[in-house]
Amino acid sequence: MNFFAKFLAPKNKIFYELFEKSADNVKQMGDLLFQVVSEPEFDKRQSLITKMEDVEHANDELTHTLFTELGRNFITPFDREDIHYLASALDDVADFVYASAKKINFYRVNPNNDIGLHKLAEIVVQSTSEVRKAVGELRNMKNMRVITDSLVKINSLENEADDIFDMCIERLFATEPDAKEVIKKREIYQVLETATDKCEDAANVIESIIVKYA
Amino acid sequence: MNFFAKFLAPKNKIFYELFEKSADNVKQMGDLLFQVVSEPEFDKRQSLITKMEDVEHANDELTHTLFTELGRNFITPFDREDIHYLASALDDVADFVYASAKKINFYRVNPNNDIGLHKLAEIVVQSTSEVRKAVGELRNMKNMRVITDSLVKINSLENEADDIFDMCIERLFATEPDAKEVIKKREIYQVLETATDKCEDAANVIESIIVKYA
Amino acid sequence: MNFFAKFLAPKNKIFYELFEKSADNVKQMGDLLFQVVSEPEFDKRQSLITKMEDVEHANDELTHTLFTELGRNFITPFDREDIHYLASALDDVADFVYASAKKINFYRVNPNNDIGLHKLAEIVVQSTSEVRKAVGELRNMKNMRVITDSLVKINSLENEADDIFDMCIERLFATEPDAKEVIKKREIYQVLETATDKCEDAANVIESIIVKYA
Repeated sequence: MNFFAKFLAPKNKIFYELFEKSADNVKQMGDLLFQVVSEPEFDKRQSLITKMEDVEHANDELTHTLFTELGRNFITPFDREDIHYLASALDDVADFVYASAKKINFYRVNPNNDIGLHKLAEIVVQSTSEVRKAVGELRNMKNMRVITDSLVKINSLENEADDIFDMCIERLFATEPDAKEVIKKREIYQVLETATDKCEDAANVIESIIVKYA
Repeated sequence: MNFFAKFLAPKNKIFYELFEKSADNVKQMGDLLFQVVSEPEFDKRQSLITKMEDVEHANDELTHTLFTELGRNFITPFDREDIHYLASALDDVADFVYASAKKINFYRVNPNNDIGLHKLAEIVVQSTSEVRKAVGELRNMKNMRVITDSLVKINSLENEADDIFDMCIERLFATEPDAKEVIKKREIYQVLETATDKCEDAANVIESIIVKYA
Repeated sequence: MNFFAKFLAPKNKIFYELFEKSADNVKQMGDLLFQVVSEPEFDKRQSLITKMEDVEHANDELTHTLFTELGRNFITPFDREDIHYLASALDDVADFVYASAKKINFYRVNPNNDIGLHKLAEIVVQSTSEVRKAVGELRNMKNMRVITDSLVKINSLENEADDIFDMCIERLFATEPDAKEVIKKREIYQVLETATDKCEDAANVIESIIVKYA
């Protein structure tokens, strides 16, 4: 490693570390969401949601640090705009996953018998886990196949989420007579579907990063 | 043409071709939408919507190719960020026009006697056609007047869509007693209105491209 | 001041002037919104809303000029992307504040006894005023403390708006039996809450500008 590279390296590594921590948070949010939709008791769901709120706040701080580092560092491991987009996408995933869980108790919706809600939560678990995997490989870029496999999976999970969302909405309008309940549940489904869109946004930025690297 | 220009030219042309194809798709989507709202039979509407789905998928591929080329090419005919914004805006137009048609049959809404819906669809037809015209002139930049005329039209069509949207919503709340039907129709109007917003976004990027060129 | 700086300076100042005018508009929109929610008569509210429409149109022109100048000027006082984001954020604040006022009369909602609506409008007044303060300090960057104080306030106002929004929605679902009224009022609360989000977006860009300057 030459002098110049040595000088630059420490400033570069901070971005990998911050992205990995953010992707860890995102994955943890997915896992906690699944616990929320599987938990029969309101109060136990509430303490899981409070845990999610903490992770979400921690991730806000992290994203803020990422943007500050982006402003401070002239040399970055990827294009500045890709760093900006990836950090925003990961932050959005965390926000939407948290929002979906929060709305379940806020609207006092019972998630236990809602098959569509469970399926959407399962997709969020898988999507966030693939996002974590792909982000973890950015540091060395050795296992390109691992990254591209994850990106393909995230894209197909997003398509699956679209279909399940449509099924949920169709069922909701057909079976729920109370329009106010329709409004509440539709909002929860939408937020979950948007969470998988944001995972896809993250995947698209990662693809744009590896295309430039290749 | 000097050696250097000859060397760069082929890489540049790909962007014009991709943008023209994407704008063709967008225009086709507008025309198909109009057929959907004018078609009295559910099943015939459905086969038009399936056709739109194919165009929408084709456009997704195209947009993906555009982003990949953007990552691969160091030299681009316009600013990189303008290419990114224009490709995203065209993709969004296609997505929203398709979504509006899909929701009509999904929610089993009869579009035939809905004057507001027809007017919004007509505006989408005109807007997407002007977008196609303006994009087609980017390649040679000779008919600046054609481009600016289209941009002015797209902007005034968007304002018209806002007014028609307000009229639709006012009428909907005044005449539809079933709140669940209000939710469905309001969503269709909103998606159509957003389609015209996205045409305006495309127009704004094109303006920013020609301002830099002038 | 050397010859080169003299030559560049006039082109630079235009951005400060445009941003200050836009922030003035934003602040004025906040003040007018507060008058709207405090005004008991429909017709008097309507003339305030017409005034807001004029300010909103003026701000559209201004934002357009800002983007045109950005295309024309090679040298800019801040990063081009920061100028783009800040102009967009200020424009969004103006749009959402105007939209919230317009919807009040459009949906014939009586704003006078709605405590949540008043509290949200008060937050918008404070947020837009802090945005104006922070933007005004960008020109000389001497009172960094004034800027950072404003940014902290805007962030905490946005959190407060989130809590008040939740309270409004909870109350709305609990007390409003008519689902169509729920749809209307929920939309007004959402637009107001989004206005405070957009103030936070403006604050985030300003932070990114001063981080690079420091």
